[in-house]
Amino acid sequence: MESDFVAWLRRIVPTHPQLKLGIGDDAAVLSLASSQCVVTSDMLMDGVDFVMSECDPRRVGRKALAVNLSDLAAMAAKPVAAIVSIAVPTTASIEVTKAICEGLLELAAEYGLALAGGDTNSWSHPLAISITAIGEPTARGVLTRAGARAGDAILVTGEFGGSILGRHFDFTPRIREALKLHQRYELHAAIDVSDGLSLDLSRLGRESSCGAIIDAQCVPISCDAFRLAEQNSDSGSPLDHALSDGEDFELILAVSAETADRIVADQSIGVSLARIGEFVAEPGLWLRDETGECQPLVPRGYEH
Amino acid sequence: MESDFVAWLRRIVPTHPQLKLGIGDDAAVLSLASSQCVVTSDMLMDGVDFVMSECDPRRVGRKALAVNLSDLAAMAAKPVAAIVSIAVPTTASIEVTKAICEGLLELAAEYGLALAGGDTNSWSHPLAISITAIGEPTARGVLTRAGARAGDAILVTGEFGGSILGRHFDFTPRIREALKLHQRYELHAAIDVSDGLSLDLSRLGRESSCGAIIDAQCVPISCDAFRLAEQNSDSGSPLDHALSDGEDFELILAVSAETADRIVADQSIGVSLARIGEFVAEPGLWLRDETGECQPLVPRGYEH
Repeated sequence: MESDFVAWLRRIVPTHPQLKLGIGDDAAVLSLASSQCVVTSDMLMDGVDFVMSECDPRRVGRKALAVNLSDLAAMAAKPVAAIVSIAVPTTASIEVTKAICEGLLELAAEYGLALAGGDTNSWSHPLAISITAIGEPTARGVLTRAGARAGDAILVTGEFGGSILGRHFDFTPRIREALKLHQRYELHAAIDVSDGLSLDLSRLGRESSCGAIIDAQCVPISCDAFRLAEQNSDSGSPLDHALSDGEDFELILAVSAETADRIVADQSIGVSLARIGEFVAEPGLWLRDETGECQPLVPRGYEH
Repeated sequence: MESDFVAWLRRIVPTHPQLKLGIGDDAAVLSLASSQCVVTSDMLMDGVDFVMSECDPRRVGRKALAVNLSDLAAMAAKPVAAIVSIAVPTTASIEVTKAICEGLLELAAEYGLALAGGDTNSWSHPLAISITAIGEPTARGVLTRAGARAGDAILVTGEFGGSILGRHFDFTPRIREALKLHQRYELHAAIDVSDGLSLDLSRLGRESSCGAIIDAQCVPISCDAFRLAEQNSDSGSPLDHALSDGEDFELILAVSAETADRIVADQSIGVSLARIGEFVAEPGLWLRDETGECQPLVPRGYEH
């Protein structure tokens, strides 16, 4: 199976100026803008991150790459290349594997990313796909989770909650948005929301040795969160969904209060930016209501 | 599970001079010797590449990294870092995942490689582990599969066949050997033998637009190949095993006839080097007996 598939892949994968040696050797060779490289990896599995029997394999390929791009966005790194390892069930046709690659290549083209290589295997179990994305820092260096300071504002892109209704496949990795913001403003720290707004915010806080207060009425709640809450009132309020559903793949940013004012006023990146609270010196997480009263908030989301 | 595991990992993973940002952020940041980077990825699965219930998980971790190092060796690239994605069965204890990492880290330390990050997941299916290794070229550049020329000698490191008896776990990735040879001699092309000597040689030939003739009596046959052939005479001769078993993770090199003479005479890298035939202009693969007669040889080995 692998040799036919690799021959097909070599025919359809476009060349890329930074890919000096691509599919078909023991390893790929990339040429980067500098000697620094940014690397991230995510593995997605059938039954956990998607249900193969219920979805277009193109969307699986797209998602497998998009979650990695979201990680590069959180570092404000420019995507360069991806390398893909896949274990396909023996019962799946080669067309399924090809469709996965097509979905992935379409997104790669959109973000100027090279498909550098990978590893194709089959086994008698469900599909697992692992992608490693390689990026390069801009002249401003990378953003990390560790730079938030007490007094910083919490900014977020987009809306939260209910991504399970479809957005977890079709989200826009915030690469362009992150690069623009990082270029124009002084950002202190960032993380992407893969597991849940409250959980990922608490992670950013922990790495920055800060706590965080979320203003309940400021959290941008997606229509999907309202829909889910309406469908099943036991599942929590729309705000609960926004705080803990995960797979929003939006960015949380830490910036000074003054920078937050400017960014929110400018709204210059094509996706809404909202200020949803502030970082504080005391470690922990709180939800603040419109009267200003704070309640401790247990970070919730998807635990792997 | 992931957060405890990651906390443990951050405690035990050593620092590395080229790892500017390691485990615990959205991505890792590496500092390379130049702006070129070499990338390779392999996924291993329970029941295909090892049998989890029958082996020490340390050996699984070691193998998962070692197969990637073998790919870097085939490029004559210096290892820098690895990033590990893993899907662990929900029934496995965290101790198993830790043991896998310990096996991997031990080999990483031996080769001066940083563990840069990864992704840990659980699911209700067997273990799958995907590692991406990142290396850097030496001043001599990388070796590829594409440089063999008609008239070149075929050199191999080590011995072939029967790796299933244990060597597929405990092999030495030929990093040091490849770097030394690449430094001292003019090498034209290389590949590592992951799927079978005859199959991988035919791949090298195809990428170089050459054919190859193997001298049957020159192939270094491992004791394990003899053992397997004796255990089951239907499985083929010791030579058949050497030509097609795979997972030897030795190197095939293409060098000029004069260089081959020098390398074989010098034997300067601490593992035996044998000349097993020559590349020819006509595409194809042949086995030559001691009388000089050539028979076409069908490349055989492990097809993914």
